[in-house]
Amino acid sequence: MSVVLLSQYREKVRSELDRVVDFWLTHSHDPDHGGFFTCLGKDGHVYDELKYVWLQGRQVWMYCRLYRTMERFHKPEILQAAKAGGEFLRRFARVPSDSWKCAFCLTKDGKAVKIQRTIFSECFYIMAMDELSRVTGDKDMQAEAEKMMDHIIHWVRVDPSELGRTQLPGEEPVNSMAVPMMLLCLVQQLTEERDHDLVEKYRETGNWCVKQILQHIQRDGTAILENVSLEGAELSGCQGRLQNPGHALEAGWFLLQYCTKNGDESLQSTAISKFIELQFQIGWDKEHGGLFYFLDVDGHCPTQLEWSMKLWWPHCEALIALLMAYNNTKKPTLLDRFAEVYEYTFSHFSDPENGEWFGYLTQEGKVALDFKGGPFKGFFHVPRCLYMCERILDGLLGDKN
Amino acid sequence: MSVVLLSQYREKVRSELDRVVDFWLTHSHDPDHGGFFTCLGKDGHVYDELKYVWLQGRQVWMYCRLYRTMERFHKPEILQAAKAGGEFLRRFARVPSDSWKCAFCLTKDGKAVKIQRTIFSECFYIMAMDELSRVTGDKDMQAEAEKMMDHIIHWVRVDPSELGRTQLPGEEPVNSMAVPMMLLCLVQQLTEERDHDLVEKYRETGNWCVKQILQHIQRDGTAILENVSLEGAELSGCQGRLQNPGHALEAGWFLLQYCTKNGDESLQSTAISKFIELQFQIGWDKEHGGLFYFLDVDGHCPTQLEWSMKLWWPHCEALIALLMAYNNTKKPTLLDRFAEVYEYTFSHFSDPENGEWFGYLTQEGKVALDFKGGPFKGFFHVPRCLYMCERILDGLLGDKN
Repeated sequence: MSVVLLSQYREKVRSELDRVVDFWLTHSHDPDHGGFFTCLGKDGHVYDELKYVWLQGRQVWMYCRLYRTMERFHKPEILQAAKAGGEFLRRFARVPSDSWKCAFCLTKDGKAVKIQRTIFSECFYIMAMDELSRVTGDKDMQAEAEKMMDHIIHWVRVDPSELGRTQLPGEEPVNSMAVPMMLLCLVQQLTEERDHDLVEKYRETGNWCVKQILQHIQRDGTAILENVSLEGAELSGCQGRLQNPGHALEAGWFLLQYCTKNGDESLQSTAISKFIELQFQIGWDKEHGGLFYFLDVDGHCPTQLEWSMKLWWPHCEALIALLMAYNNTKKPTLLDRFAEVYEYTFSHFSDPENGEWFGYLTQEGKVALDFKGGPFKGFFHVPRCLYMCERILDGLLGDKN
Repeated sequence: MSVVLLSQYREKVRSELDRVVDFWLTHSHDPDHGGFFTCLGKDGHVYDELKYVWLQGRQVWMYCRLYRTMERFHKPEILQAAKAGGEFLRRFARVPSDSWKCAFCLTKDGKAVKIQRTIFSECFYIMAMDELSRVTGDKDMQAEAEKMMDHIIHWVRVDPSELGRTQLPGEEPVNSMAVPMMLLCLVQQLTEERDHDLVEKYRETGNWCVKQILQHIQRDGTAILENVSLEGAELSGCQGRLQNPGHALEAGWFLLQYCTKNGDESLQSTAISKFIELQFQIGWDKEHGGLFYFLDVDGHCPTQLEWSMKLWWPHCEALIALLMAYNNTKKPTLLDRFAEVYEYTFSHFSDPENGEWFGYLTQEGKVALDFKGGPFKGFFHVPRCLYMCERILDGLLGDKN
């Protein structure tokens, strides 16, 4: 390993994180209602005032995490914005307010616009509440996060009817990788540095999530498929053949974190070989560079119109996954892969002119959508990636700050 | 006008229609259950067996229309396939079978996989039933189409609750252009060559549709916006600023057909200037050719990832709209525009190797998804375009067959 190279990475990642935080502090706050505008143009202008609940929760979480764990972000304006975002969520996200179901999208003053029949708004609500409670010491907020978690576990493992979905006769029940990944992430969030009882409360759920994630290893270990049956068998058609390499890479580093907590070497080896190395090999575009968004395991053309586009977030997940895997194993090829993704990512997504990253490139690497934030891109994947990479690089360089 | 040129167009359009019909006759039929596979790869192979109800209804409609009105398609195998498709729809599309709500997607043997909270599956069910009843003389089938039409009108104009949608407090009611366009198309379908009483029954609905469509002319006549308020005012945000030039062009030729029936010269002038000429001017990519899929009227980047892609169907609609407008007015620039779209379309979408058309190109005109049929591309826009253009060209050339 070259210390010089790692130091260069850290320098870049640090300064990029500073610029990204600055972009969102400058452009995304709503001083009137709290919460965050996330539809921000290339120079930061607000082009739509809708407030997407996933992105509200994620921004509260990220602000708190930075405030709590990185000295240079321990600033009153960050805490203030996180609290205003948390307050906005607590007042408006649950619809109706005595239910545990959250809206997907709200007007800027908090009126519900859309409710999805999934669990993800609720998951990011938990992320926000738990992390904010760590900063403020608000025990009610922590308790609310745990109560919502219990509801989500019930919806996922016992009865989804409160989500408003009915199983149709032709619809085979699906283990969609997003669900156990998200729950595993929440278990890690809720139990991190908490007492023994809480860790034990969620231990079985965490183990169940890992089993559910591992069911996605298919075709004799040559593929990770995004959707499998509840018994872990391959599903028919496009749905069953779908691969999402960025998502698998994200699952890879979630599993590595689980291994670090639970000391499972065989699982670490699987996470690295199947969810990280293999995904890079399958997902990387040998012609133009960058990770494909979707692929079909049998080589058919995916039906998602954006399948060949290069999105920012799979590259964020790849950077974290490869660097974490290198950190855990010191295997040189993992650092080589990291360098390759790093090179592509910083030269294509990062905007030297106005700050932050573009989110959506063509297969050839041209900016296809030039905004910095949208309905699905907020203050989350980019800063989380930079934050995680900076901390891992700190560790590798033996310098904690 | 050059007769030689128009003859060349007609020759190409005729032979292309023959090839497209042949492609679907060869590859899409399900001899076991009736109905049609629509997920067909570039060479016609079935890559997914799901049956999308929109596409089932459209294929029945198109087969019957060709069988009924074009001598060379008056073939038993086409009638047979249309009947088997109609039978499949009647047995399986309505879920539950005593309701008027149709599924969006079925398994190959007819089990419901997904139901949308919109009216479009039902609309294409009507198209299929009405056209099939004209071929078979089945009065029950015609009556079923009319009954379903009455339900759709109720859902759209009186009470949408049976669709399963609840209006949320932050969700402003929207006049989405697709709805009055679709209803106008159905009024034209149900009343064509029918007796006076039926024409009168739907006259007010047709007039209402035209008014609703004209509400989308915004910004002092400089734009057609896809979504407006129920009162015809511009909506805020991305939703309000959205333009879909191909859709407006389609509305243009629907309006021209209405004018031909109802003799409204002022409406014809509006249809041509606003829904056809202006849309070509706004929607055409001056750099790479082809029509953009979505645009923002204020020049922001649309949030739809596919906004800059070139899709087959807007080009189909543009060809029909421009040729019909030329036919009605003989204005030379309309034929020039037709020639420009014709040139782009046949050189980019049509596949000389395996037949049929690719559906999805990059902004630069490269094939981005190489299948010939998918969840939203069936036997409809391409053959309808070729069929309409052939008939208009027949008229222009003074040769009915």
